[in-house]
Amino acid sequence: MLSIAVIGAGRIGQIHARNVVANPRARLAGIADLDADAAARLAQACGTQVISLQVAFEADAVMICSSTSTHAGLIERAAAAGRPVFCEKPIDLSAPRVRMCLMAVRRARIPLMVGFNRRFDPHFAALKRRLSAGEIGRLELLTIVSRDPAPPPPAYVASSGGLFRDMMIHDLDMARFLLGEEPVEVFAAASVLVDPAIGAAGDVDTAVVTLRTAGGALCQISNSRRASYGYDQRIEAHGAGGLLRAGNVTATTVELATGAGFTTDPALPFFLERYAAAYRAELDGFIDALAAGTPPHPGGEDGLRALLLADAATLSASTHEPVTPAGEI
Amino acid sequence: MLSIAVIGAGRIGQIHARNVVANPRARLAGIADLDADAAARLAQACGTQVISLQVAFEADAVMICSSTSTHAGLIERAAAAGRPVFCEKPIDLSAPRVRMCLMAVRRARIPLMVGFNRRFDPHFAALKRRLSAGEIGRLELLTIVSRDPAPPPPAYVASSGGLFRDMMIHDLDMARFLLGEEPVEVFAAASVLVDPAIGAAGDVDTAVVTLRTAGGALCQISNSRRASYGYDQRIEAHGAGGLLRAGNVTATTVELATGAGFTTDPALPFFLERYAAAYRAELDGFIDALAAGTPPHPGGEDGLRALLLADAATLSASTHEPVTPAGEI
Amino acid sequence: MLSIAVIGAGRIGQIHARNVVANPRARLAGIADLDADAAARLAQACGTQVISLQVAFEADAVMICSSTSTHAGLIERAAAAGRPVFCEKPIDLSAPRVRMCLMAVRRARIPLMVGFNRRFDPHFAALKRRLSAGEIGRLELLTIVSRDPAPPPPAYVASSGGLFRDMMIHDLDMARFLLGEEPVEVFAAASVLVDPAIGAAGDVDTAVVTLRTAGGALCQISNSRRASYGYDQRIEAHGAGGLLRAGNVTATTVELATGAGFTTDPALPFFLERYAAAYRAELDGFIDALAAGTPPHPGGEDGLRALLLADAATLSASTHEPVTPAGEI
Amino acid sequence: MLSIAVIGAGRIGQIHARNVVANPRARLAGIADLDADAAARLAQACGTQVISLQVAFEADAVMICSSTSTHAGLIERAAAAGRPVFCEKPIDLSAPRVRMCLMAVRRARIPLMVGFNRRFDPHFAALKRRLSAGEIGRLELLTIVSRDPAPPPPAYVASSGGLFRDMMIHDLDMARFLLGEEPVEVFAAASVLVDPAIGAAGDVDTAVVTLRTAGGALCQISNSRRASYGYDQRIEAHGAGGLLRAGNVTATTVELATGAGFTTDPALPFFLERYAAAYRAELDGFIDALAAGTPPHPGGEDGLRALLLADAATLSASTHEPVTPAGEI
Repeated sequence: MLSIAVIGAGRIGQIHARNVVANPRARLAGIADLDADAAARLAQACGTQVISLQVAFEADAVMICSSTSTHAGLIERAAAAGRPVFCEKPIDLSAPRVRMCLMAVRRARIPLMVGFNRRFDPHFAALKRRLSAGEIGRLELLTIVSRDPAPPPPAYVASSGGLFRDMMIHDLDMARFLLGEEPVEVFAAASVLVDPAIGAAGDVDTAVVTLRTAGGALCQISNSRRASYGYDQRIEAHGAGGLLRAGNVTATTVELATGAGFTTDPALPFFLERYAAAYRAELDGFIDALAAGTPPHPGGEDGLRALLLADAATLSASTHEPVTPAGEI
Repeated sequence: MLSIAVIGAGRIGQIHARNVVANPRARLAGIADLDADAAARLAQACGTQVISLQVAFEADAVMICSSTSTHAGLIERAAAAGRPVFCEKPIDLSAPRVRMCLMAVRRARIPLMVGFNRRFDPHFAALKRRLSAGEIGRLELLTIVSRDPAPPPPAYVASSGGLFRDMMIHDLDMARFLLGEEPVEVFAAASVLVDPAIGAAGDVDTAVVTLRTAGGALCQISNSRRASYGYDQRIEAHGAGGLLRAGNVTATTVELATGAGFTTDPALPFFLERYAAAYRAELDGFIDALAAGTPPHPGGEDGLRALLLADAATLSASTHEPVTPAGEI
Repeated sequence: MLSIAVIGAGRIGQIHARNVVANPRARLAGIADLDADAAARLAQACGTQVISLQVAFEADAVMICSSTSTHAGLIERAAAAGRPVFCEKPIDLSAPRVRMCLMAVRRARIPLMVGFNRRFDPHFAALKRRLSAGEIGRLELLTIVSRDPAPPPPAYVASSGGLFRDMMIHDLDMARFLLGEEPVEVFAAASVLVDPAIGAAGDVDTAVVTLRTAGGALCQISNSRRASYGYDQRIEAHGAGGLLRAGNVTATTVELATGAGFTTDPALPFFLERYAAAYRAELDGFIDALAAGTPPHPGGEDGLRALLLADAATLSASTHEPVTPAGEI
Repeated sequence: MLSIAVIGAGRIGQIHARNVVANPRARLAGIADLDADAAARLAQACGTQVISLQVAFEADAVMICSSTSTHAGLIERAAAAGRPVFCEKPIDLSAPRVRMCLMAVRRARIPLMVGFNRRFDPHFAALKRRLSAGEIGRLELLTIVSRDPAPPPPAYVASSGGLFRDMMIHDLDMARFLLGEEPVEVFAAASVLVDPAIGAAGDVDTAVVTLRTAGGALCQISNSRRASYGYDQRIEAHGAGGLLRAGNVTATTVELATGAGFTTDPALPFFLERYAAAYRAELDGFIDALAAGTPPHPGGEDGLRALLLADAATLSASTHEPVTPAGEI
């Protein structure tokens, strides 16, 4: 029974804390958060206690769910304490800072897992498994669609690192995961079409990216900060022998037919619903790795590489030039 | 180049006449109809002439598209003239009358084809072909759904022979076509739910039928005189090794996604649209058989057997008892 | 926190026991089973204790998951102990025995819920909700398809009460649930097509039923003891204003396209997977009713009425006559 | 009755000639082709005569279906003869040559239509109509997928002008058609993944393009010279208010369910099947415009603009830089 402390009692911390409680192989050691009220509410809901950061790092493992700017420091503290750590993405918005943090992780030889939850989505995971099993031969064209139901509040945008680092980073990780080789060219085109306030904050809300790998495989990513029909999350892989795709998930299979046509449910509203199973499987993956003594996946390098791709996309969108992502990590 | 005369310039006569014109192996000999205006309009639209019945029976073949009460007499006249004949369903609403007519056909040894157009629908024909090819093994359960978009005018109902002989006869023929053996038990349940005027005319507008074959295969048919979402035409065959089904056809593949969900087109409006290709293929089947000198399918016996099933269903619906359809033909 | 004792450590008892453990409003009081080993295994897996029947009836509520023949007696014992009770379907295979049992329940005024889990399936529940909300107007035609992936062992068949009481009873309850009025005529046709051993045991493995209500609504049910493509569970409701349907559920949305076409997942394998969410919602419904002090649904009368319909169908299948189900309860 | 001469008896000439024969408003004046045998075969199949180019330009209108290198010259000859002309895409592979040709057309004031058949596909045309009707508000993201079933022969590749001018030009026209404004930036990434012989001929077989308009709308196009599952032709438009998409077309609606899952038909094999209705509607559009005396659409400028986009994409793919397409026409 692995004792796990959760740091951060916000939206994503609540998901992980509840999953720890429900997981038969784990025990929730407590909740730590600077906001004492938030910590207390979540602790009570989970039947556990509020703990200090110091006590948190005495648990068998730590899950970092606090705000982005605290991630790298907390990972380093876990390294110092010799504790395995799961950290929500991103490790940091600055690649140099991430590199520094990963050095501490390597020196301390602690297991580090980064929260790219979509790898654990049952639909995308099945697609990956079948791709790896060779069902469509060599992958040639990859298409990833990811559209949020609604734009985030402007205040969030300002500190988010921008659409590419905040939102598309998930798709960039998924591209790496599925392509099986590193992109060598990143081209981005982006616009402000959803909310002028996002543009005023220096960010974009609609973006497409093209990735090319050394082997010639091509990938197209499409992001928007709005989708009237729910959280739009789709992947399509075209290979020499066929096509594999994973579509949106709906709440029910119910269909209504009238003179207007046949209508099914919209896509699930947002990540809490769409990725509920993914978060549970992600926790299982973390526990599996710790139990087996093998490095958890995705790890720190994955976190860094996705960030470097997001950096390249950010640069490309502003320069209107394709960018070669930094290769050394 | 087969010369074909079309008798009857109504809705179905128009379909067949135009298909004869467009068929590269046939020539439209002319249009005969008691209603001289209707005949003239259709003849002009098809670039042909109005002809008398007598001249019609001088063509290489005759298509009977006139009102039901005239079918048997015209078939007999074709027999007397030694002309191959295609007749719209049903041959007659009275089984004894049909038997008499078929005797004339047999004596004259003329080819007779009956217009069960759905056998030629590309979707249902493909289902039949794959069923016969053994894709799902032995057929165990057959489901046929057939719902009209809107009820016919009460005046039509009165002379239609009732829902089972007018509408479900198509599904009963399809059941025979797919089951590959004769039903030995027919049970019908019917209601007046759509239009009280239909009930006042002594008919029903909503009906379900169960068929059982000697081999134990079961078939369920569902009919309604209304469907807000178009002309609902579906078949599902469940066998020892799997399921084959053919669904509704839509005008386009366009799908709209909004907060209300994902909406595709309704089903095609009615038989003119849904079975346009079937009518063309039916004509090809008729010409093929004449060219090959083989009996056309479905033939007179198929017309009679479907009527006997419709008679059995009509009786069952009124007696609330299962009925064994007449076997001798 | 409601303490719930689970009686019966078999397949269905395991589902309910685990759901009680996971339910934040309930506490698992213990497991009772004549098979001490089975009880011990389940108790350990759930972190609870093996208890005697006597102790079980001291819990706040009891869930009866033992073999069918014990249900009625255990419900009566719950009545005697004044305990709210959830009982798996059926209450008993004999209607007189069920009536006697329900009398005891009424006299003791204990809440009784019967395990028709499909009412709680999110897909079917949404269909019911939208039907009740009037989305398609008055219900005219109802179609229920229910096909097991594979036949049960012959030994099970012998004591099952037959396909209608064992398997179709779920569909008969669903028909009552959706029709909103009682069927007044039941006609069944059944065959042995899957396994001769089932026929040798006096049962059937393939069956269709037609129901008619006093209001004229019609319902078709189709059952088979095999379906190569998974557990086939579908409902289609056709009303004056349109059609509502709920389809099969698949493990993933992944689709493979090759020269053979576009292939999606088969249906989920069987009830454990398909109705996992339904069993959780069913438990919530039970707890809700106890908390509110209102009668739980479906209740004892629902259990009896579904059995009376199954009795009518069984009789109809053997006599080849439609049967009016017993009305008084 | 418009007399139309068809120049070119190859694959596409055969389609247009047969459609002219079947069109009630047109008459096939004859077939002209340098290959006398090909001309004779097609003329016979269409019940018309072989004619010289000179005679062809005496018809009411001319359809140019000969090889690409002859298009511009033949259009100019039509201009000299004052004949309305339909020309298969592209007008020429060289933009300066196209400009020169269009000057002749403008001077002669003859109607010129260019064969971008996909605009007339019922599915894409419906999508365009609904987009224009405002069903999803302002268009923000457009995705076009176009994959051929198999690569063309290497000999064809050499003279094709390359994938962007030969294949993607259709998608670039469709992008202009749907976006409703001109792309101002074109970025292409391309690979040789299907057939090394294509690479040896200096072309690519797999390519993606990003378009950006002045208004900020973004478009992604994906092309491959192979698709094991048929001719893959899809469009998806994402707007402020929702999503509209048009999918692949299949031969039938038949679906097979087995343990492997639910399998529908592959996409229609290639353009002859997929765009059969589009070619007919395209001819109707041409005749409509001539009858109304209005300029046919798409016209010469559309042909030039699509070529300029293809030129920009070709350049971008080789320089790895985004390209601003030439604006003046």
